Amino acid sequence: MTVLNKENFEVSLQNRLNQKLNSLLKNKNIIEESISYALSNPGKRVRPLLIYLVGDALNIPERKLDSIALASEIIHTYSLVHDDLPCMDDDDLRRGKPTLHKKYSESTAVLAGDAMQTLAIKIILEDENLSNENRVKIASFLLQTIGHEGMILGQDQDIRFEEKLKVSKDEIIEMNRLKTGLLIEFCILAPILISGTKNDAWQEMATSVGISFQLIDDLLDLEESEENLGKATNKDEQKNKKSAPIVVGIIDTQKEIKKYEDKTMESLVKLGLNSHPLADYLQDLYRRRK
Amino acid sequence: MTVLNKENFEVSLQNRLNQKLNSLLKNKNIIEESISYALSNPGKRVRPLLIYLVGDALNIPERKLDSIALASEIIHTYSLVHDDLPCMDDDDLRRGKPTLHKKYSESTAVLAGDAMQTLAIKIILEDENLSNENRVKIASFLLQTIGHEGMILGQDQDIRFEEKLKVSKDEIIEMNRLKTGLLIEFCILAPILISGTKNDAWQEMATSVGISFQLIDDLLDLEESEENLGKATNKDEQKNKKSAPIVVGIIDTQKEIKKYEDKTMESLVKLGLNSHPLADYLQDLYRRRK
Repeated sequence: MTVLNKENFEVSLQNRLNQKLNSLLKNKNIIEESISYALSNPGKRVRPLLIYLVGDALNIPERKLDSIALASEIIHTYSLVHDDLPCMDDDDLRRGKPTLHKKYSESTAVLAGDAMQTLAIKIILEDENLSNENRVKIASFLLQTIGHEGMILGQDQDIRFEEKLKVSKDEIIEMNRLKTGLLIEFCILAPILISGTKNDAWQEMATSVGISFQLIDDLLDLEESEENLGKATNKDEQKNKKSAPIVVGIIDTQKEIKKYEDKTMESLVKLGLNSHPLADYLQDLYRRRK
Repeated sequence: MTVLNKENFEVSLQNRLNQKLNSLLKNKNIIEESISYALSNPGKRVRPLLIYLVGDALNIPERKLDSIALASEIIHTYSLVHDDLPCMDDDDLRRGKPTLHKKYSESTAVLAGDAMQTLAIKIILEDENLSNENRVKIASFLLQTIGHEGMILGQDQDIRFEEKLKVSKDEIIEMNRLKTGLLIEFCILAPILISGTKNDAWQEMATSVGISFQLIDDLLDLEESEENLGKATNKDEQKNKKSAPIVVGIIDTQKEIKKYEDKTMESLVKLGLNSHPLADYLQDLYRRRK
């Protein structure tokens, strides 16, 4: 069952999200303007698309997913804005455009990131398409995902690993899951909170997609040229960053990704979704070259 | 009506709050440890105390106020941690102790601040003493208070004013209200969301206490020596900061504060609270020397 058109669901969902992102802020001060700048940088919108696709598989109307989709993209963007800061990864470019602190200032980048976190949660809590119970459940789940036991802890480990001589594969996988995986998991599992569906295959799929998403990113980062990706590549190696392909090698990372891909596809079969657009989309994610 | 002991309510409420703050985190990683470090720096705990005092005036049991009180102090502390960063106010000391980025690192300070915002909202949303409706209402109100139309906008204006040659009194007052006032207003008005009380005098009191709180701080900052306050003083003038006493002078700032004090006391009379501990506490705030 799907209401999505198999041929163009990606573009149509991206359009839906971009429209909603564009109408969010009135740009009446530098903070709003800089948030709009960061949000308008066209990424793949992976997180909101996962929410809409899983929601479609569960027969949830799109209007009940909009606020969660928006929030996931805003949280992701906030994490990039803070991650790009000079005291963190110190990146000047993001998807080929100057990072927020380069375009505006460092203080504006700190503050805009702060305000983006606020905005994301507020959008969920004020969504009239959701019951109070669901607003609380979903916002709490998102906060659990991004806090000191989740995304922030992963970010901190990532920076700390730069100073370590040796990091194990398990430590890298754990850091990946915290830093990137949990937010992807949230996107796959949040619609399930609305529909009340229970099936362990969802959790297995979510974990597999989440961890492998970062592994693929790290592989691409090592392989592709600066031009191709629109961000500084091989910078990770220069900065003594510990990504999976750097620590365990490219071949072993590819094997690891294949393992997660197989698990993902098995879960889709278990859920009867192997011919749903979600399956195509996930397959494309595993095969992506940027 | 009060359940508070007039003689020692301040110490007993501070103890209640500190106990809850101490049991919040297990310090099992650097992020948690640094958050505990920031929260244990003993401030006056003005914001939670206002919440408990207003709640007492409205006959709300303390257990229904705990999460809001905790959240207000955590949000305040997060704003200080980010405000102290080198790219913002660049402060090395906070209440006589090294600021978080001095004690740990700049990246940890950014991340710990981020995680504190997350934690504060999560505590309210997961408070089993509040209905889902109240959790949503109160958390939304707090997010409105601290976002891109509130505290963050005020912080940005504060930094931007450093580069301006001239700033008007009205601009300073507006910046004060956004940066500091709104969170104080939240503390006075949030308990009212629980009790459902309606009276314009509460709003008038909240606005007056909020704006004058920052005015008094700025006056003290200009008057007191570094030793006395435990933070760098006169630094504001050196950095071309635009506070009210710098822009309109000490005498006019004192007059302004007196005006707000009178309004506060009138509101207390209108609400029949002029002999409630809240009145004593507010009077002490207006008279404070640090």
